[in-house]
Amino acid sequence: MSHPIYFVSLGPGDAELITLKSLHALQQADIIYCPSTVREPDKILSRAATLLHKLDIKGDIHLFSLPMSKDRTKAIKVYRQLFEKMRLEQKAGKRLAVAVEGDAGIYASVHYVLDLLEENGIPVEQLPGIPSFIAAEAAAKLHLISQKERLVIIPGNITSDELDMYLSHHHVPVIMKLSQCADIVQDYMESHPQYSYHYFENISTAEEYHSSHQAELKRRVFPYFSLMIIFNEQIRKDNSSK
Amino acid sequence: MSHPIYFVSLGPGDAELITLKSLHALQQADIIYCPSTVREPDKILSRAATLLHKLDIKGDIHLFSLPMSKDRTKAIKVYRQLFEKMRLEQKAGKRLAVAVEGDAGIYASVHYVLDLLEENGIPVEQLPGIPSFIAAEAAAKLHLISQKERLVIIPGNITSDELDMYLSHHHVPVIMKLSQCADIVQDYMESHPQYSYHYFENISTAEEYHSSHQAELKRRVFPYFSLMIIFNEQIRKDNSSK
Repeated sequence: MSHPIYFVSLGPGDAELITLKSLHALQQADIIYCPSTVREPDKILSRAATLLHKLDIKGDIHLFSLPMSKDRTKAIKVYRQLFEKMRLEQKAGKRLAVAVEGDAGIYASVHYVLDLLEENGIPVEQLPGIPSFIAAEAAAKLHLISQKERLVIIPGNITSDELDMYLSHHHVPVIMKLSQCADIVQDYMESHPQYSYHYFENISTAEEYHSSHQAELKRRVFPYFSLMIIFNEQIRKDNSSK
Repeated sequence: MSHPIYFVSLGPGDAELITLKSLHALQQADIIYCPSTVREPDKILSRAATLLHKLDIKGDIHLFSLPMSKDRTKAIKVYRQLFEKMRLEQKAGKRLAVAVEGDAGIYASVHYVLDLLEENGIPVEQLPGIPSFIAAEAAAKLHLISQKERLVIIPGNITSDELDMYLSHHHVPVIMKLSQCADIVQDYMESHPQYSYHYFENISTAEEYHSSHQAELKRRVFPYFSLMIIFNEQIRKDNSSK
């Protein structure tokens, strides 16, 4: 009998924010693959593997190292090798899982491997997890979207005109990978002080920080793991009084 | 000592999709409030309470009944009564929780009570949960957003022009409360057969159903708990080959 390969979502970083379903899948796995990055020679970082240790998972943890590069060719090579390994192990009756932070369907490039396995007739399952923007909203006790509002998730590429359009048309923009568009967002805050800016850094980790103080945010250097949620409070109030 | 009041997110419906954090908060609560609706006289429906029973939660479960009406006045009256009750119970040292399906920050009108409590200086905590659109994506093994794509969550109010705009500009639209705009979406499918339409009904329940067959979807009557995810596969392919 062959077991499906589980693509497990670990949630945003706090071990307690994993679902029971993901936890059970990991507890039953013989081998669990986790993405890692090499920051410096001999310094391997895998936030996923750290989480598995906290959750006391017993299966063998294998890291696959993703090159930090915008060129996808190298990452695709890593993923093809991973696919070949997993194909053989699954055939040999091993229970396999791939564990990723956040949710496996939200900006998770490992989905490439899931698609490859599926195209090759190997059974896969995808388990949902809490995305970072949902964890951020809860940490600040925000009502992220209500009534007729629309949520829009933006991966670090935004213009001032687009923000104007969203904020005047009932959208709540969430900007991920904020470090990629820090100047644009900080300039926008300067020219549009009437909106509410909720900033989050290293959400659900020991270094978690959030603030909605505009003066503070204008000076801050945004690290890689940061995001911003913006509200047009005037439109919110008009809607909720209807 | 007074305990914070927890606003607990139960996730989309499958008991296993609750987080460890939400489960622990519920296990420690003396009283848990759940929203319910009265469908017919003597027929009370609370999907949240049903989930708590499945999870074997021992605290007292109190239902509060929300009128099914677009007029918010009646719901606000219910929420004000709930606020008054919880304020007294919390003062008396009770451990309280409010349990809602999905995520407490995504279209959850009970957030009104959380805001009232906070305005009155009563400590509250909001725990994140899996929203239905994340559970839907995982059930169909979809890569919901990748690379430069933006996700937009729409609560049942959409025009054909807006869909055109989103689908030609790297947005992945997710339409919730699909029954409210069934005609518009079905006409759009008819006139835009080149896009991929992923339809979901009663996600994460025993009645879960999903399909991406356009001929089938054009004839289907969409129930209240349904949603649609639409992809412009051509733009996806162009992006991923870059």
